[in-house]
Amino acid sequence: MSSTSSSSETPPIPHKTDMPTASAMQKDIVAGRLTPSAILEACLEVVDQHEKNVGAWAFIDQDGARRRAKELDRQAPKGLLHGIPFGIKDNIDTCEIPTDYGTSIYNHSLPPRDAACVASLRLAGANPLGKTVSTELAHITPGKTRNPWNLSHTPGGSSSGSAAAVASGMVPVALGTQTTGSVIRPAAFCGVIGYKPTFGDFNVSGVLANAPSFDTLGVMARCIDDVVLVRRALLDGSIPDVRPAPLAGARVGIGRTPFWDHACAASQALLDKTTSRLEQAGAILSDFDGGLTFDGLETAGSVIAGYEFARTITHERRTGYDRFSEPLREGRMADGLRADYDTYVAALWRMEEARIQFDAAMLHFDFILTPSTPGSAPNSVRETGSPKFTFAWSWLHVPAITLPMTTDEGGLPLGLQMAGRRHQDEHLLNFAEAVLHNLPI
Amino acid sequence: MSSTSSSSETPPIPHKTDMPTASAMQKDIVAGRLTPSAILEACLEVVDQHEKNVGAWAFIDQDGARRRAKELDRQAPKGLLHGIPFGIKDNIDTCEIPTDYGTSIYNHSLPPRDAACVASLRLAGANPLGKTVSTELAHITPGKTRNPWNLSHTPGGSSSGSAAAVASGMVPVALGTQTTGSVIRPAAFCGVIGYKPTFGDFNVSGVLANAPSFDTLGVMARCIDDVVLVRRALLDGSIPDVRPAPLAGARVGIGRTPFWDHACAASQALLDKTTSRLEQAGAILSDFDGGLTFDGLETAGSVIAGYEFARTITHERRTGYDRFSEPLREGRMADGLRADYDTYVAALWRMEEARIQFDAAMLHFDFILTPSTPGSAPNSVRETGSPKFTFAWSWLHVPAITLPMTTDEGGLPLGLQMAGRRHQDEHLLNFAEAVLHNLPI
Repeated sequence: MSSTSSSSETPPIPHKTDMPTASAMQKDIVAGRLTPSAILEACLEVVDQHEKNVGAWAFIDQDGARRRAKELDRQAPKGLLHGIPFGIKDNIDTCEIPTDYGTSIYNHSLPPRDAACVASLRLAGANPLGKTVSTELAHITPGKTRNPWNLSHTPGGSSSGSAAAVASGMVPVALGTQTTGSVIRPAAFCGVIGYKPTFGDFNVSGVLANAPSFDTLGVMARCIDDVVLVRRALLDGSIPDVRPAPLAGARVGIGRTPFWDHACAASQALLDKTTSRLEQAGAILSDFDGGLTFDGLETAGSVIAGYEFARTITHERRTGYDRFSEPLREGRMADGLRADYDTYVAALWRMEEARIQFDAAMLHFDFILTPSTPGSAPNSVRETGSPKFTFAWSWLHVPAITLPMTTDEGGLPLGLQMAGRRHQDEHLLNFAEAVLHNLPI
Repeated sequence: MSSTSSSSETPPIPHKTDMPTASAMQKDIVAGRLTPSAILEACLEVVDQHEKNVGAWAFIDQDGARRRAKELDRQAPKGLLHGIPFGIKDNIDTCEIPTDYGTSIYNHSLPPRDAACVASLRLAGANPLGKTVSTELAHITPGKTRNPWNLSHTPGGSSSGSAAAVASGMVPVALGTQTTGSVIRPAAFCGVIGYKPTFGDFNVSGVLANAPSFDTLGVMARCIDDVVLVRRALLDGSIPDVRPAPLAGARVGIGRTPFWDHACAASQALLDKTTSRLEQAGAILSDFDGGLTFDGLETAGSVIAGYEFARTITHERRTGYDRFSEPLREGRMADGLRADYDTYVAALWRMEEARIQFDAAMLHFDFILTPSTPGSAPNSVRETGSPKFTFAWSWLHVPAITLPMTTDEGGLPLGLQMAGRRHQDEHLLNFAEAVLHNLPI
């Protein structure tokens, strides 16, 4: 899965950014050492330097962001994210910044209202820098974004631009969405943290639906403190700071089934190495097979995703079908138009049962450890990679996070994924912090 | 609960419409006896006659509807709803017809895309006549609509305009939404059929969310055949025609608990009378107490609805708070801002458990029979009525339908509600057809 590419394409390694995290920026702003405008200008400088290679942005709202930063300069910092620039995947509505949903059907539309997530971050003082590239209607056809670690490789999708923008240091945090693997995969490929919460936790009003039974808003960041800042802004002030969980005694499920054979040698080695370290740290490890959870899960989820996606995009089918890419015409949508209601309902029941089976299986584990992706980012910008290691957590509605643990022999990032119990996101994030910082690999 | 009002306010009884149903229109169009334009003009004539009193519409797109009708005139009728005019609740996005979400914050906005439901009906050939009045952001503050049966009474809410438009014969069918009781209640108060499907069945992409865990798209109509036409257009061609289910042997649960004391004498009498008739028809009747289903359900659902609604409308809170009505400021939103994440999650778990308890209790019943509302429409246009008899079915995600069975001594409609099992909507609709037509009261 690892690979090399022509050196002529090698970018100025934007991922080795020294851009501070949102948490660090926030401290500087509160202490009066930095202004929202100064932080924005630092971000814009990185954008200037790397955007021509990386192509993370569908629309950069430089003027709007500068205007908002000046307003924030004049205010006492009271919000959680006062003056913090952020990126917004282009399938998320913004009323002041054009929204195109990753398709050419819309001509820089301005929806009437900001999505709930955008409004919540703005209410916390954050400053939207622009819209990041999404695959076409958040399905699989890639946009212009390239992997900041190696421009001939995919950044992953569908939240391609959000991952690439954070990896390049253009913004400290960005919003993405996941229906199958669209946060975890690009975050892993771009070497950043990607967090997909429990289904439903982050309000998706104003986010273009894909398959509503699975659609989840997620966050890209470079430290877990920043994930928690965003989580607190989207949920409420009761969300506590990260507190690394003790690894001694932690009950860790090793998720080699059912797709272990899909993982490349480097991914398998990363998991095995992490497992050894966890064992040394006193964790209690055992294989996690999920009981009956995975029986028929992939088939059922594919039926649900197809049936729902085909209906979600009825307006686009009706008015813009001739602008659909071939993979959009022939992928999830076509599957969904072939399925009938009874098949869909049977799949919904199977999925609900699988969630209950998973909840039961998880009584014995604090978290599950799996690869984030089969390997590092494929050497192509025409695909976005496999969702084999992510779809189950999306469809089971459980929280998942990918941690940038290492690089492979081609110098590309490899992620490690942790999945937790429904609505125990805090528990998962505290363990993730421990794994990320106590286990340098 | 029944009441009288000054005769000076009595309208020209628009509910006694002889406007044909969508199914009848469709037959005439297919047979070439009527054109889409002729049908539209007939609807517009009723609008002309009654709209000044009833106020069902937030925006009537007369020119657009005429243009679309002319285009449809030229096409061979192939869609399920070719040329059928319909109403769209104003919390549902339409890209050619202004959308205001029942608030003055938006100035006739034009969202970039039609909601999935609107696009699906248009794909089936239906002709949107305009946007029907919603309460403010689909919460409780009423708009201008009055009850067509008596103008001093509420039409119910939040889908006020959709119910009033169908009751007045302005359109044969209209789309509404329900989070607590917003389809069933106005349909019952206005004497039409209101159908709220199993949660998730009708795609809500492009519908303004209220509480996403509960939000359900519904249909107002004057016969169950029309409900099924819309259902088929929104789901797929496998949805069969209505076939009245045999009442002999039907297992009917009488839902007197937990709110029977809230029902007025007329509502209680209607239920008792229906029960007797069902017994004569050979149905097997027993009390439905729901087992543990209702324990703590109202509290849990209120927490969920509040927590989610407060976040859904963050953009409006941030940019238009000064235009919020007092009930909006102090109702569900304020409750939701007081709740914290742990309380919300505990409520979600309780609700999931209640759904499973209800599924189990329903193994012994084909459907549950309850009042639709405590009584007929209250004599006020400043409130929209109680959701006591509807919230459970919304929050349990089960299908429900209200049937216009009779009127009370004040001449106002009384509805009878039937609730079924999740994803067994066809079963429920077939029983509803039997109840509606075999039991004239």
